[in-house]
Amino acid sequence: MGPDPAWRTAISRVEPNSIRVRGYDLVELIGRRSFGDVVYLLLAGELPAGNEGRMVEACLVAASEHSVVAPSVDAARFVASAGVPLQAAAAAGMIGLGDHHGGAVDACARLFLDAADAGGDEREGIARIAASLKAEGRRLPGYGHVVHDPDPRARRLLDVAGELGFGGRWCGLALAFEAVTEDVFGKHLAMNVDGALAAILLELGLDWRLGKAFYVIARPPGFVAHVFEEQTRERPYRDVGWRNVAYDGPPDREPPA
Amino acid sequence: MGPDPAWRTAISRVEPNSIRVRGYDLVELIGRRSFGDVVYLLLAGELPAGNEGRMVEACLVAASEHSVVAPSVDAARFVASAGVPLQAAAAAGMIGLGDHHGGAVDACARLFLDAADAGGDEREGIARIAASLKAEGRRLPGYGHVVHDPDPRARRLLDVAGELGFGGRWCGLALAFEAVTEDVFGKHLAMNVDGALAAILLELGLDWRLGKAFYVIARPPGFVAHVFEEQTRERPYRDVGWRNVAYDGPPDREPPA
Amino acid sequence: MGPDPAWRTAISRVEPNSIRVRGYDLVELIGRRSFGDVVYLLLAGELPAGNEGRMVEACLVAASEHSVVAPSVDAARFVASAGVPLQAAAAAGMIGLGDHHGGAVDACARLFLDAADAGGDEREGIARIAASLKAEGRRLPGYGHVVHDPDPRARRLLDVAGELGFGGRWCGLALAFEAVTEDVFGKHLAMNVDGALAAILLELGLDWRLGKAFYVIARPPGFVAHVFEEQTRERPYRDVGWRNVAYDGPPDREPPA
Amino acid sequence: MGPDPAWRTAISRVEPNSIRVRGYDLVELIGRRSFGDVVYLLLAGELPAGNEGRMVEACLVAASEHSVVAPSVDAARFVASAGVPLQAAAAAGMIGLGDHHGGAVDACARLFLDAADAGGDEREGIARIAASLKAEGRRLPGYGHVVHDPDPRARRLLDVAGELGFGGRWCGLALAFEAVTEDVFGKHLAMNVDGALAAILLELGLDWRLGKAFYVIARPPGFVAHVFEEQTRERPYRDVGWRNVAYDGPPDREPPA
Repeated sequence: MGPDPAWRTAISRVEPNSIRVRGYDLVELIGRRSFGDVVYLLLAGELPAGNEGRMVEACLVAASEHSVVAPSVDAARFVASAGVPLQAAAAAGMIGLGDHHGGAVDACARLFLDAADAGGDEREGIARIAASLKAEGRRLPGYGHVVHDPDPRARRLLDVAGELGFGGRWCGLALAFEAVTEDVFGKHLAMNVDGALAAILLELGLDWRLGKAFYVIARPPGFVAHVFEEQTRERPYRDVGWRNVAYDGPPDREPPA
Repeated sequence: MGPDPAWRTAISRVEPNSIRVRGYDLVELIGRRSFGDVVYLLLAGELPAGNEGRMVEACLVAASEHSVVAPSVDAARFVASAGVPLQAAAAAGMIGLGDHHGGAVDACARLFLDAADAGGDEREGIARIAASLKAEGRRLPGYGHVVHDPDPRARRLLDVAGELGFGGRWCGLALAFEAVTEDVFGKHLAMNVDGALAAILLELGLDWRLGKAFYVIARPPGFVAHVFEEQTRERPYRDVGWRNVAYDGPPDREPPA
Repeated sequence: MGPDPAWRTAISRVEPNSIRVRGYDLVELIGRRSFGDVVYLLLAGELPAGNEGRMVEACLVAASEHSVVAPSVDAARFVASAGVPLQAAAAAGMIGLGDHHGGAVDACARLFLDAADAGGDEREGIARIAASLKAEGRRLPGYGHVVHDPDPRARRLLDVAGELGFGGRWCGLALAFEAVTEDVFGKHLAMNVDGALAAILLELGLDWRLGKAFYVIARPPGFVAHVFEEQTRERPYRDVGWRNVAYDGPPDREPPA
Repeated sequence: MGPDPAWRTAISRVEPNSIRVRGYDLVELIGRRSFGDVVYLLLAGELPAGNEGRMVEACLVAASEHSVVAPSVDAARFVASAGVPLQAAAAAGMIGLGDHHGGAVDACARLFLDAADAGGDEREGIARIAASLKAEGRRLPGYGHVVHDPDPRARRLLDVAGELGFGGRWCGLALAFEAVTEDVFGKHLAMNVDGALAAILLELGLDWRLGKAFYVIARPPGFVAHVFEEQTRERPYRDVGWRNVAYDGPPDREPPA
């Protein structure tokens, strides 16, 4: 009786002295292909025929670091302070790349696909989609930023996409959404890095459900740097400090008998 | 009263419309610098003056994927099958980059530093260190592999290190350790990818405690690919199958009254 | 300037020599109140006035262990084998308590609330809700089990709920859903442990979004036992074995020049 | 060919309609045995013959909650704010139960075992062990607390241990260590909750390497409460606030050409 359920994969094959990724000998890729090429190979199943690897690397650089102004990095540093191995603290950070932190890439890519599927006049379709979000009290994922206005990474990514041959329909749609924000939301909402990443994800032909992949792949070097800094520069056991906490629960009371 | 404890960092600074990493404007790096350069910047504090970024990328490619023949990937797939977001399943995999799975890089780099500190005849020092591990019943971290003999990634990494100008003292030490294995352990233990990564870590001037960083940074694209494959190709809720488990605990019994 | 954003909590207050949970001195609860009472206190905000703590403990016991026939436990064991601290391996398991693994409690509780809100004839409302799931090709969360038929934990939990005074409306609804499964899905789907936990969650007056809490709280002792067993009885670095993997991706090929 | 490596476990056995834990029918334990009894069963392999389950529950209550004055809870709340499922945020907290946060239980239990093994006059042995820690610049794990002096949970736990019949040799040793702190460290270091837990761990006959288990099992209800509070009371995406960060890295500079 074999393993149940059986293991199968189309990603890579390991045999003694051989590691093949999507059919390619991994050893031949070492030092010959960029990390961006291999990321693309793993996600898309093929080595880049053109600039895909460079485009991936630009996205990874854009999403790589935002200091402690990010829930994921803060979580990683708290956990690091408690005395855990490097990878475990980085993992705590990674868990935090949630729907409100990188997850806007998926949601925004889904929006672009919806707009493309809508048919009819594109600008009208976009305005309708944006208005329906507004009516539901929801935000437009990929637009606006809590610190930046505009987020300088977005325009830069679109410029690089243009240079590398990825300034196509999806980048156009991303700008078209930005253009309706003032009318729909009553203020201009500049595209943020997630919005630009969503457009480029689709330009690269990747599945929209891989939207968070850019953050999942881009953030670990920063997690490593922050965990290492926390563990080598700060005192162990960081907490928020009991004096800094406002308790607003029930007053002191006696347990029932 | 300010936050307690205060937050400080030397890694990056975020202000409205500005993200500076180690002093450099992140926006200027997007599309201009490789991900390897930025990884080096985050870990070493400086942009590469030479080939450091390419060397980092070669290391990341080498450590990027080993199919489901790795505890971390298996864990990520089990967790993915249970219905969790992409980043959470990837984080479960990352936790698994433990002392026996990537951790050999730290241990091996520490060994090289010990050998370098030992003074005296280098080959004698190395043989003495290896023999002392052997006497304690411990393995030589970075040598031998459960599947590969030799691990083809190791020699390739050293070759690339030579091409890029990083074939220095630490790579020499790595080969010198390999050379004593037959005498000390009674069989030739070929350098594995972790041994090569340890040597290159030191060639790059990085802290030995960052040994696991290569895996922490290199593996996420593979985690993403495996999680996505699990969630799109396999049925939910993978487990090992009750028929495949041998129970060898206490026999059926009644609880004491 | 104070911390931004400020920290506030209604759960507990820590001051020198004092820890108060929901207003009660934690020290007075030690040895006087059961863990179930304190779980209820943390989740509901009040100490039990009646049997709530015993009911919580019955739920925790029911959900506590299912051997390696669970993705979470398997993930914890793989990660443990890679050489990580106890709590980190347990955390990898916990991540796996996803929508298909404990998450049915939330979904099922939501269903019961929908049925209660539906008005009209209750049995008709239930049949309509079940039929609409069926029409969408979805499963009825909380009913049927991949190994057990019936899941013996479900009936036992309902019996205990009756004994402790929690056999009310929600338990009735849970049985009413079971009663329509044969008509709607073409075969009898017995209530599973998640279905029973969902009913009891509501009987306890807890928020349906806390459905996964039973697993999150109940499983850690099992994770600990499995991690400890893996690390003390098995060889390090468990993987699925390269011989057990069927690769079905692209055939061997050369990288493009 | 069967699975490689094979799965075996002495913890529990699952077969259709049957779940046996250490030989006992789990269903019979539901509602009949406390969660503490089942925790003891999972960790020690036997159901309590006496008060072990009540002692375990007292330990779990003592370790259950310390507000946001704990790195683990802070991490869980940051992660929760980023929009992730309940169990994933709780897992981020759990990762943080590291060497400086619950890990003192292991270290302290190890110390008690060393003292017991030392032979000769017990008080002298204890003073020697404490002095050797002091000489190495290390702390005495299980004594002193960053907020409390004394930690009120410690004495309470020892009192309860006495009531329940666990006030034996290890509790005596724990007090004996406390008694030498003033001489050795120049100030009285009161036993903290971890010190008391370490003594009781050994009184219960559990393996010292299970020290962290108390936290791993006790903290999840608090993680759940904090994650739920964060997600229902606070705005998404909590970070430390860019204005609260002191950057002390390299000044603004231009990338090398």
